[in-house]
Amino acid sequence: MAETERDETGREDDDYALDTRAVETIRAAIESGDAAAIDAAMEPLHAADIADLLEQIDPAERRALLALWSGGIDGEILSEIDESIRDEVIGALPREVLTEAVRELESDDVVDLIEDLEEPQQEMILGALPQDERVAVEKSLTYPEHSAGRLMQREVVVAPEHWTVGEAIDFLRAQTELPDQFYHVILVDPAHRPVGYVTLGKLMSSKRTVRLRDITEDSFRTMNVLEEEGDVAYAFNQYHLISAPVVDEGGRLVGVITIDDAMAVLDEEHEEDVLMLAGVAGEASVADGVLATVRQRIPWLVVNLFTASLSAFVISRFEGTLVAIVALAALMPIVASTGGIAGTQSLAVAVRALATRDLTASNAARVVRRELVAGLLNGLLLAGLLGLGGALISGDALIGGVLALAMIVNQIVAATGGVLVPLALHRIGLDPALASGTFVTTLTDVMGYLAFLGFATWILI
Amino acid sequence: MAETERDETGREDDDYALDTRAVETIRAAIESGDAAAIDAAMEPLHAADIADLLEQIDPAERRALLALWSGGIDGEILSEIDESIRDEVIGALPREVLTEAVRELESDDVVDLIEDLEEPQQEMILGALPQDERVAVEKSLTYPEHSAGRLMQREVVVAPEHWTVGEAIDFLRAQTELPDQFYHVILVDPAHRPVGYVTLGKLMSSKRTVRLRDITEDSFRTMNVLEEEGDVAYAFNQYHLISAPVVDEGGRLVGVITIDDAMAVLDEEHEEDVLMLAGVAGEASVADGVLATVRQRIPWLVVNLFTASLSAFVISRFEGTLVAIVALAALMPIVASTGGIAGTQSLAVAVRALATRDLTASNAARVVRRELVAGLLNGLLLAGLLGLGGALISGDALIGGVLALAMIVNQIVAATGGVLVPLALHRIGLDPALASGTFVTTLTDVMGYLAFLGFATWILI
Repeated sequence: MAETERDETGREDDDYALDTRAVETIRAAIESGDAAAIDAAMEPLHAADIADLLEQIDPAERRALLALWSGGIDGEILSEIDESIRDEVIGALPREVLTEAVRELESDDVVDLIEDLEEPQQEMILGALPQDERVAVEKSLTYPEHSAGRLMQREVVVAPEHWTVGEAIDFLRAQTELPDQFYHVILVDPAHRPVGYVTLGKLMSSKRTVRLRDITEDSFRTMNVLEEEGDVAYAFNQYHLISAPVVDEGGRLVGVITIDDAMAVLDEEHEEDVLMLAGVAGEASVADGVLATVRQRIPWLVVNLFTASLSAFVISRFEGTLVAIVALAALMPIVASTGGIAGTQSLAVAVRALATRDLTASNAARVVRRELVAGLLNGLLLAGLLGLGGALISGDALIGGVLALAMIVNQIVAATGGVLVPLALHRIGLDPALASGTFVTTLTDVMGYLAFLGFATWILI
Repeated sequence: MAETERDETGREDDDYALDTRAVETIRAAIESGDAAAIDAAMEPLHAADIADLLEQIDPAERRALLALWSGGIDGEILSEIDESIRDEVIGALPREVLTEAVRELESDDVVDLIEDLEEPQQEMILGALPQDERVAVEKSLTYPEHSAGRLMQREVVVAPEHWTVGEAIDFLRAQTELPDQFYHVILVDPAHRPVGYVTLGKLMSSKRTVRLRDITEDSFRTMNVLEEEGDVAYAFNQYHLISAPVVDEGGRLVGVITIDDAMAVLDEEHEEDVLMLAGVAGEASVADGVLATVRQRIPWLVVNLFTASLSAFVISRFEGTLVAIVALAALMPIVASTGGIAGTQSLAVAVRALATRDLTASNAARVVRRELVAGLLNGLLLAGLLGLGGALISGDALIGGVLALAMIVNQIVAATGGVLVPLALHRIGLDPALASGTFVTTLTDVMGYLAFLGFATWILI
């Protein structure tokens, strides 16, 4: 892994990701039905890359690959596979392969795997688990979707708060079954409430007689089991947590969340924000089919059809002006379009700042004020350019003036609207990214046409 | 930390973030110059929250707070402070406070702190470091910006590959200075090349006689010191890494990157993508002033002024048609606007998929084909609605037909353009998010007007 190849296509071919040439080799082997070549090409791939491979190839290729490949889907690959093809892959697996795969997984991965499956598939997988793990998974499924309870693993390493380093080390060294990943020993009081944690590194380097409670980490924070996973991810990133104990309403330890799961949530939350801002409903993947794609996109397109009709209505009120000076019809989209860009800019900054809790009630007024002044300045600069250009091209200085005035007004509306709309959505408890884009561009379109045609009617007619 | 309060403003007041009421208390104390009240309110705050507080208040309040607060800025707060106000805060600190703060930091945090500072401030901070750490920081600064070399910490815990668990434990327990955060013991060969790593948990639970090389982790991957930090973050998320050794060109161990730093990079990369997609140039923060805001936004606004003029030119070619049927002027933005939304949707999915390496040369053709068919279906659905509505409102079935035809064409152009533009940018080595939005909306605007007015001229005139 030490060397990285780069070619003219940018980072696509760096070796931290699935290699395009490997995919092509495998596709060729599928095409020719060459099972040995498939096995050879799949062998060096990481489970996450195999999952990506399955998403990137056609459904027909996917079926052929699953039938030909002797390696077979294991638990790790299964838990990496994107939801868009998970049902399909699970449905294609022989029952004993599925059972084997599921038994390898930790309880949090099983939960993640089955929470979005259909009832019969869910039952089949639960049935494949040993009794105690089945109970653990069913318990996790009782917590709300996207909660800390779903994200946590139930395997924890705890020690009574009064223990010494020596006692903890002896205890750990006597264990036969420790979790795969653990970074802290969690200290609990007699009621099993976490009171602090000690890193394994600190435990290693401290004298045997030192009390655990004297070497706990300052960064210690617990998460409520009902906490939103997005808030959990935020807390991990904000406070540089590596793991965090999860507690129930009574403050008792019920599990632990580790940073790798929090990082995956942060990444998903970002995906949601980007897609939501762009007006895509729900989760979208390049592996989705045509109908899933249409379903994700048509809702906001229909909404936009109606909001765009608002602009049409505004313009229709100025037909007299347009009949008098038809050249205005060609010029009118410029102000609206530049307003749309400015609104989107302001919106992106505001939505991002709300997500990172940097835009709050404390500084909202100052940020709106800043947007207003920045919008005015941008408006003046653009008005200068557009006014001059418009006057030269149309040969009419007054038309240049109308363009300039409308530009200033719409830039101010765009910049302030771009921050006020997400603030308002956030205030009423909605996701600020939800449809902000449609609202803001409707606002800038309507204001753009209104200002331009309004000033034109007033000044030119 | 176990309880979470929520009020009607949504997640702003959950207790994993800076509390708005705490900010208001502190602002009131600043206003009244009450140092004791400031100290009391600041005391429970985490360094990351203090940094957020400093970003959220006015520059004047910031100066007053720094003068009044007895706690003072320590290394941790300093390294949390956003770049937009870092120069200002460092400039305001007395030299001895700054020296003290910087000496607390690990080398990677010092690098992160000073890499964007002006030369004199950089020199001052380097001068405050002990000789050996100064050398370490200067060495890191010789690596390119945004490289693994800048991100890594140089403090590593290594063991020869032939050691046993017992030898490693005895070695660790004899150390007086281990890094604050470490999760693995890295095994090296005699040339100091990393060959694997063992988690501390595995070390704890294995017998003393077991060889380290027999209990290494499968997930082991090294990073090249020149690797882009975005690729490092991708690898951590893709392969669920907790830490990764960093090697030089000769494969020798030079440092280690831990997941908390990778998570912070992932978050910054997201921010860049969202802002870039929206046409904001460079880093933007709610703490930026008006002029910084104007500088970030004016470049793409000016570009849009020119691209919008393309639409104006297209419309101006149809003045004869508009004179004949002035009602067309009001209807023409609908097709263009709905195309803009569809293009943005397709674009967001494509840019995100390129970032997660899910859209590659292997599946690009299939994704473009899917977009084409989805665009056609969306176009047909929207054409039905718009055609019917347009015919009813205008009282002219032919106008409805023109709207419908133009909608179908533009939806197809939008959906395919939304994926082809970022693919093309990626192909020529540019960031696919860079200005994609401007390109795509220009395309959908021009096509929207051209299709609508073209069909209108052909059918109605």
